[in-house]
Amino acid sequence: MANVVVGQSGGPSSVINNSLAGVYKRAKILGADKVYGMRYGIQGFLEERLVDLDEYLKDDRSFNLLRTTPSSFLGSCRYKLPDFEISDAVYKRIFQILAKYQIEAFIYIGGNDSMDTIRKLADYGQKIGSSVTFVGAPKTIDDDLMETDHTPGYGSAAKYIATTTKEVIRDMVVYEHKPSVFVMEIMGRNAGWLTAASALSRGDNCVGPDLIYLPEVNFDLANFRADVEKILKRKDCVLVAVSEGIHTADGTFIPELQGADLAVDSFGHKAMGGTAEVLCKFCEKEFGVKTRSLELSVMQRCGAHIASRTDAEEAFASGAAAVEAALRGQTGLMATLVRESNDPYVCSVSLADVHKISNAERKVPRSMINEAGNDVTDEFISYARPLIMGELQPIMKDGIPEHLVLD
Amino acid sequence: MANVVVGQSGGPSSVINNSLAGVYKRAKILGADKVYGMRYGIQGFLEERLVDLDEYLKDDRSFNLLRTTPSSFLGSCRYKLPDFEISDAVYKRIFQILAKYQIEAFIYIGGNDSMDTIRKLADYGQKIGSSVTFVGAPKTIDDDLMETDHTPGYGSAAKYIATTTKEVIRDMVVYEHKPSVFVMEIMGRNAGWLTAASALSRGDNCVGPDLIYLPEVNFDLANFRADVEKILKRKDCVLVAVSEGIHTADGTFIPELQGADLAVDSFGHKAMGGTAEVLCKFCEKEFGVKTRSLELSVMQRCGAHIASRTDAEEAFASGAAAVEAALRGQTGLMATLVRESNDPYVCSVSLADVHKISNAERKVPRSMINEAGNDVTDEFISYARPLIMGELQPIMKDGIPEHLVLD
Repeated sequence: MANVVVGQSGGPSSVINNSLAGVYKRAKILGADKVYGMRYGIQGFLEERLVDLDEYLKDDRSFNLLRTTPSSFLGSCRYKLPDFEISDAVYKRIFQILAKYQIEAFIYIGGNDSMDTIRKLADYGQKIGSSVTFVGAPKTIDDDLMETDHTPGYGSAAKYIATTTKEVIRDMVVYEHKPSVFVMEIMGRNAGWLTAASALSRGDNCVGPDLIYLPEVNFDLANFRADVEKILKRKDCVLVAVSEGIHTADGTFIPELQGADLAVDSFGHKAMGGTAEVLCKFCEKEFGVKTRSLELSVMQRCGAHIASRTDAEEAFASGAAAVEAALRGQTGLMATLVRESNDPYVCSVSLADVHKISNAERKVPRSMINEAGNDVTDEFISYARPLIMGELQPIMKDGIPEHLVLD
Repeated sequence: MANVVVGQSGGPSSVINNSLAGVYKRAKILGADKVYGMRYGIQGFLEERLVDLDEYLKDDRSFNLLRTTPSSFLGSCRYKLPDFEISDAVYKRIFQILAKYQIEAFIYIGGNDSMDTIRKLADYGQKIGSSVTFVGAPKTIDDDLMETDHTPGYGSAAKYIATTTKEVIRDMVVYEHKPSVFVMEIMGRNAGWLTAASALSRGDNCVGPDLIYLPEVNFDLANFRADVEKILKRKDCVLVAVSEGIHTADGTFIPELQGADLAVDSFGHKAMGGTAEVLCKFCEKEFGVKTRSLELSVMQRCGAHIASRTDAEEAFASGAAAVEAALRGQTGLMATLVRESNDPYVCSVSLADVHKISNAERKVPRSMINEAGNDVTDEFISYARPLIMGELQPIMKDGIPEHLVLD
């Protein structure tokens, strides 16, 4: 059998290397000769920077380390292929390299933009009558890919966010009679899935965030003020979870808000902070309370030490399914996750046409957001809870997680 | 035997409840009748808000949950007792309550300020000839208490910081040829122990932060610029770890720096961010690179899901030692940790006069900081490594850690 190449593209996640592990393992089982990894995605591929994964995954220990190492083992890129009808030089180069290395199947692990790459390569391949197949394996913490119930990477980010939210709440409530507002800023420009995951902190021993704002509902500063005021009347500490991408009805993001001296220091200077910071300054000014802004930043997408086992296994399975389809001769597809049932949670892997996926975004449906637009509904909890179940324990050395690193 | 009361004071940590568990367990073994917990430290004690810990720690599960729950189970306060030579009303009230509840031993878990409370109460008790004993159990993530090799709470915060640093570095290096500077801001106003812990991320598969700045060495912006420039010449991504408390020779903190248009937006407005944010803006301006500021914020002190087992056990042991001393009739002391040997790491518990501890701070010695003042030395690594060893696994439910919560 011939060779396979696999690449990782777009932003990292805690389980993206599980998808890589799934591609490698299944390709080997199916008899692939070489499984090449491309350094830094298609960008490195164009420079023929291919590594033979056999060299890095010689034993079980390496393989297990790969599975518990966050962020793209092979490196990543943000490279957009031109439209081949306009310029096909880069396509010719790609197919030359594919031929040179006798590659039959090309797997790309990534999100919307990476699926755009798969779509274009598959279409071009069909146009020139190539037998090389192109299949995508889904990856994004944002959970915003179409045609799949959810996306590998989301469950682990959601577990990190839920765990951190719960711990922050324990921290927040230690003092009595000290009114305060904490605003936690979570990733998500257009889709609120990650921010919604803060609600998974709720349970017998945690009330969760008091207010949750997603970009799917227009943000209104007067409503926000009223929401916070109401909660400050009944408890000392308010925790607000916001997506970085929340915006007003006219599309203005929070750090761009100017009206009503929203965020000015004592010299009248406008603040330059992020969403959480600006909302904190607003609350300080309006309520005279202590505030704290928290940004979960890149930690939410690389916190593999608290990765979801469910997520890791689904990442592995979808990588495996992608390469299996490609070696079967299918092209222009992405592996998808299909929820067969929720209780018990059963999820299978399928395939969907990548044309329906690339350059589209799946948002949190209105039914998963409460009427007031300041919290999620039980429908969201039922959807998301199974995805954070189980732990993928890191391999520890010298008190910290070990990682598999390429160079 | 008579009763014991225990309180928690000051900022939270991931293992402060291990100290509480140690006090409770040893007091019971030594035959104490009631072990009362005071809600919200001495402030709650003054309102007679005492809980009988037997009611909350009925079984092994509750006890184990207490040990894996971050932040003060009993609540905390920041309450400074007046000097009793000036005003002794509050002392009279305290000793009335002690008598009413037949309390023989008073244990306070906390940092410098809490030890000031122990010192004053012990001194007052001796002055009035009371038999009640007052002993402190050390707690602070800052590791800045005198008379002890290190402080319970530090090891877990250090483990969180080292783990997060390593994961962030994996995240940072995924793209090639995209020069960037990440600045990670870590707690520590006057002592750099926590920031130094970012260096524990170093090992076979992680280079660790490129630059580390502690408040023990005066910060110089020109030197910082030269340091970053030098590293940007040889690698794409620079990770800088800074203590929130770094300052220039004249005592100016970074967010207060004004000179040389340090941090201005395109409208000429001064930034209002924290230390990391201001240094990021500086690097953007000086080097034209992408930057990202990361604040580990309260997460570093409540991230119990990655607590150090060594730290948790030492917290337990020091709580136990404190109550044992108090029940033996000793007063005005704090339990301390004594490093017997480093390889193998052996640590015992002792006691020290609280007068030598209260209101003093232990800083990182110059020998643990490199000559250039932009990194730590091996001496620091040898000191800190044993403190982050082992994991205290959280008890998981519904995909997130369970906590024991009082109300």
